[in-house]
Amino acid sequence: MKVGIGILGGGIVGGTLARRLLADRATIAQKTGLDLELVKVAVRDLDRPRNFPVEYATNNLEEVVDDPGVSLVVELMGGLEPAGSLVLRALQAGKPVVTANKELVAAKGPALFAAAASTGVSLLFEAAVGGGIPLIRPLTESLAGEKISRVLGIVNGTTNYILTAMDEEGTSFEDALKAAQALGYAEADPTADVSGADAAAKAVILAGLAFGVWVGSDRVHREGIDRLDTSDLAFARQLGYVVKLLGVADSGPSGVSVRVHPTFVPRSHPLASIRGATNAVFVEGPAVGQLLFSGPGAGGEPTATAVLGDVIDASRELLAGAQVAPRILLADREVADFGGVSSRWYIRLEVDDSPGVLAAIAGVFGESGVSLGSVWQEGRGDQATLILITHDATEDAHQQAVKRLQALAVVKQVATTIRVLGTDQPPGLR
Amino acid sequence: MKVGIGILGGGIVGGTLARRLLADRATIAQKTGLDLELVKVAVRDLDRPRNFPVEYATNNLEEVVDDPGVSLVVELMGGLEPAGSLVLRALQAGKPVVTANKELVAAKGPALFAAAASTGVSLLFEAAVGGGIPLIRPLTESLAGEKISRVLGIVNGTTNYILTAMDEEGTSFEDALKAAQALGYAEADPTADVSGADAAAKAVILAGLAFGVWVGSDRVHREGIDRLDTSDLAFARQLGYVVKLLGVADSGPSGVSVRVHPTFVPRSHPLASIRGATNAVFVEGPAVGQLLFSGPGAGGEPTATAVLGDVIDASRELLAGAQVAPRILLADREVADFGGVSSRWYIRLEVDDSPGVLAAIAGVFGESGVSLGSVWQEGRGDQATLILITHDATEDAHQQAVKRLQALAVVKQVATTIRVLGTDQPPGLR
Repeated sequence: MKVGIGILGGGIVGGTLARRLLADRATIAQKTGLDLELVKVAVRDLDRPRNFPVEYATNNLEEVVDDPGVSLVVELMGGLEPAGSLVLRALQAGKPVVTANKELVAAKGPALFAAAASTGVSLLFEAAVGGGIPLIRPLTESLAGEKISRVLGIVNGTTNYILTAMDEEGTSFEDALKAAQALGYAEADPTADVSGADAAAKAVILAGLAFGVWVGSDRVHREGIDRLDTSDLAFARQLGYVVKLLGVADSGPSGVSVRVHPTFVPRSHPLASIRGATNAVFVEGPAVGQLLFSGPGAGGEPTATAVLGDVIDASRELLAGAQVAPRILLADREVADFGGVSSRWYIRLEVDDSPGVLAAIAGVFGESGVSLGSVWQEGRGDQATLILITHDATEDAHQQAVKRLQALAVVKQVATTIRVLGTDQPPGLR
Repeated sequence: MKVGIGILGGGIVGGTLARRLLADRATIAQKTGLDLELVKVAVRDLDRPRNFPVEYATNNLEEVVDDPGVSLVVELMGGLEPAGSLVLRALQAGKPVVTANKELVAAKGPALFAAAASTGVSLLFEAAVGGGIPLIRPLTESLAGEKISRVLGIVNGTTNYILTAMDEEGTSFEDALKAAQALGYAEADPTADVSGADAAAKAVILAGLAFGVWVGSDRVHREGIDRLDTSDLAFARQLGYVVKLLGVADSGPSGVSVRVHPTFVPRSHPLASIRGATNAVFVEGPAVGQLLFSGPGAGGEPTATAVLGDVIDASRELLAGAQVAPRILLADREVADFGGVSSRWYIRLEVDDSPGVLAAIAGVFGESGVSLGSVWQEGRGDQATLILITHDATEDAHQQAVKRLQALAVVKQVATTIRVLGTDQPPGLR
C-alpha cells in the first residue's frame, strides 16, 4: 500500500531521509509491508539539492503540503515560522506530520496536537529530542502505566562536546567551541546551544511527554555554559565531579518544574561517562526505578532514522484508518514555583584570609537556612579561595545566602554557584 | 471505554499487576482514556491470593480465558504448557494477549504471531526481555527504518548479580549464588539462570525483533557461568577486563547468529559498569550507531509496569478496532553456522616452563590460523600458567587450536577459553 511522502527542508537530515527513502524503498516494503514513495522535497536553493535527484526538488513549500500525491508531510526546516503554519496546514488537511523541530513542538505542542486530533491524524516527533535515541514511544507507550517522577539528562550534544574537551584536555571554552565548530558540531552562531535554549526546548518536550504539562519557555529556568570558568572545571575534577549541562524535568507536590543548567555530576554517576556529542536521558519512577537511554544526539543518519521510524508508524495508522495511540495527553497540573526547587550547591568565594572569615560565612548560611556539607580553602592571604558544597537548599534560600555573602566585607566576590547532582546512585549502576 | 482484564498467574508480577489495576484504575483512565477493569486472576493456590481481594481469584485457568467479561488476557504463569495452549486459545477467540513468558515467546513465537494475525489481535511481550526496560517498541517501531546489525547485552540479572559479587568481593561462585538466593534474585533451582538458558531465550527474542528470524534453541550456542573459575576473574581484573554473561544476536552475510556466553568486557566499556541485577542492551546499526538501554531487569514492580504498558497499548488497539503495528515480521534469512562466527579469545594454559614451550604453542596457533595479541606468563617450573589473548578468530579455528594445544606434551591443561568483547568503543561512550 502506497504512501506519498513530502519533505519540507532539504538540509542534512532532509537530504539523508530523501536518499534513504529512494534507496531503501524495496527493503522497507519487505520489512514493513509499506510502499513509501518520495514525492517532493522543498529546498531553499534549487541549485543545491543534497543526496537526491533534482527532479524531486521544489522551492515552493505550500506545493509540497498541498500536493494530492503527498499523504504524509515531514517537516525538517526548523524554526517557528513558516514551519508552524505549514505543519498546521497539513494536519488540518488530514495529513499526518512527522517533525524533528524541537523549537516548534516545545512552543506550540498543545495547539498542534489539538489540530491533529481534530482530523484524527498523528503528529510524531521522535527526532526532536535525543536525535536517534528512542524516547517518545518508551515514555508514552511502554511507560503509560508508570507515574514518572523525573526525567533528566544530557540532551545537547554540542555543549557536551565542549564540556568534554574542557574537562579532558583542559581546553578553554572559546577553544573548545572553535573545535566544535570546525567539526560541524556547533553552528556559526552557537547561541542556541551554549545558552541552553536548545536543551530547554528538549526538556520542555520531555516534561510534556512525562507529565502531560507543556511548560512555557518563560517558566523554564535556563543557564548556559558560556560563563563557566576553567577554574571551576578544575575544582570539579579535584572534588570528584565533572560539569555537565543537564536538562531536568520533575514532578513534585507543588507541580512540574523544568530547568537547564550546568551541574556538578559525581564521576561515579553514569551521566559522567557520557562523552562528546552523545546524549543520555534518565527516566525515573517509583515502579521502574531508573531507566537509562543513551546514543547519538544528532547527526544526519541517526536523526533520519528516528524520522523514518515515525514515518513508518504514521503510515501504518494512515492505512489502518485509525489513530490508535493518542500519544500526548495534556494534564491539568501546575508549573512549580522555581524558588521552591531544591539542589545541592557548589559555591566558589574569593575571600580575605583573615581570622573569623569562616565563622562569618558559616553564620550567613545558617541564617539563610542552608546547611553546609564541606568546605575547602585554596591559597592564603589576598588570594584565598573558599569552595563550599551545601546540602539540599531551595533556590530561594540559596539566593538569600548569596545576597548576604555579597554584603559581607570579608567576601570579595561570590565567583560561581553551580548546582550539584545528588549522589543517590541508581541501583545497579555506578 | 471499558476493557475487561483476565490474568493467568497470581505470583509476584501477577499480584502486583492486579493490585495496580485496582488501585490506579482512575489514574489510568484519566491518563489514557481507558477504563481497565480487573475481572479475574487465576492463581495456583486459592488460599494465598497476593495483593488483591480474594473474590477476584479462581483456580480455573480456562475460566479466565473464556469469561465473556474478559476481553484481554495477561499470561504470567511462565513455562511452555499449559501457558502456550491458553495463549493460543485466547488469541483464537480474538482476545489480545500480553505475556512476560520469554520461554514461550522464544520457542513458539511465530506460531503465536500467526494465530494473533488470523484474528487481527496483538500478542505483546515487552516484559519478556529486560524486565522494565522498554526494548520492543524501540526495536520494532522507532528503529523500523534501520538495518540493525547487532544486539547484545546483559539480559539476566541473577548471573550479573553473581558475577558482580565475584568480581568486586572475590566471592566464590557458590557463595555468590547463595547470597543471590537469600536475596530472592536466584531461584532454589538456579539452573535456568546460571546455565544461560534464560539469557538464551531472551537473545532469541531480541534476534527475532531485530532481524525477523526466530532461531531455534538448538541453534543457539550457550555457555553458562557455572564453570567459571575465580582465577579467571582475577586474571580478568589484572588485564583490565570484567567477566559478564552476554547475550549476542547479530546479522552477517552468512545469516543470523544467537549466542550466550561469559565474556571478557574491557573495564572502559559501558557494559562493564552494569552492576548487580541491572540489565543493559546495546543496539547497533549503520545509521544510528550504538544505542544503550539500561534499567532493572526483573522485579515485580518494573515487570508489572512493562506489562501494564502492553495492556494499555493492546486495549487502545482493541477499542480502535485496528491492529496498527504488525510488530513482528518474519524474514526469510539463514541461521549462520556457528563455526564461522569470530571472536577474540582469552586462553589460560597450564604448561611446563621449559625452553621452547612458547615457540611450540605459538606454532600451534600459527598452524590453526589464529593470530596472538598478547601473552603473559605467571609462575615458573611446574606451576607455570600461560595467559593468551588472541586477535579475531573463528570458532572453528579456535577449536582447532585448542585440540592441537591439548595434543602438545608441554601443555598440561587448556584450563579455560573465554571470548573477549572487541575493544571498539561506542562513539562518545567510554
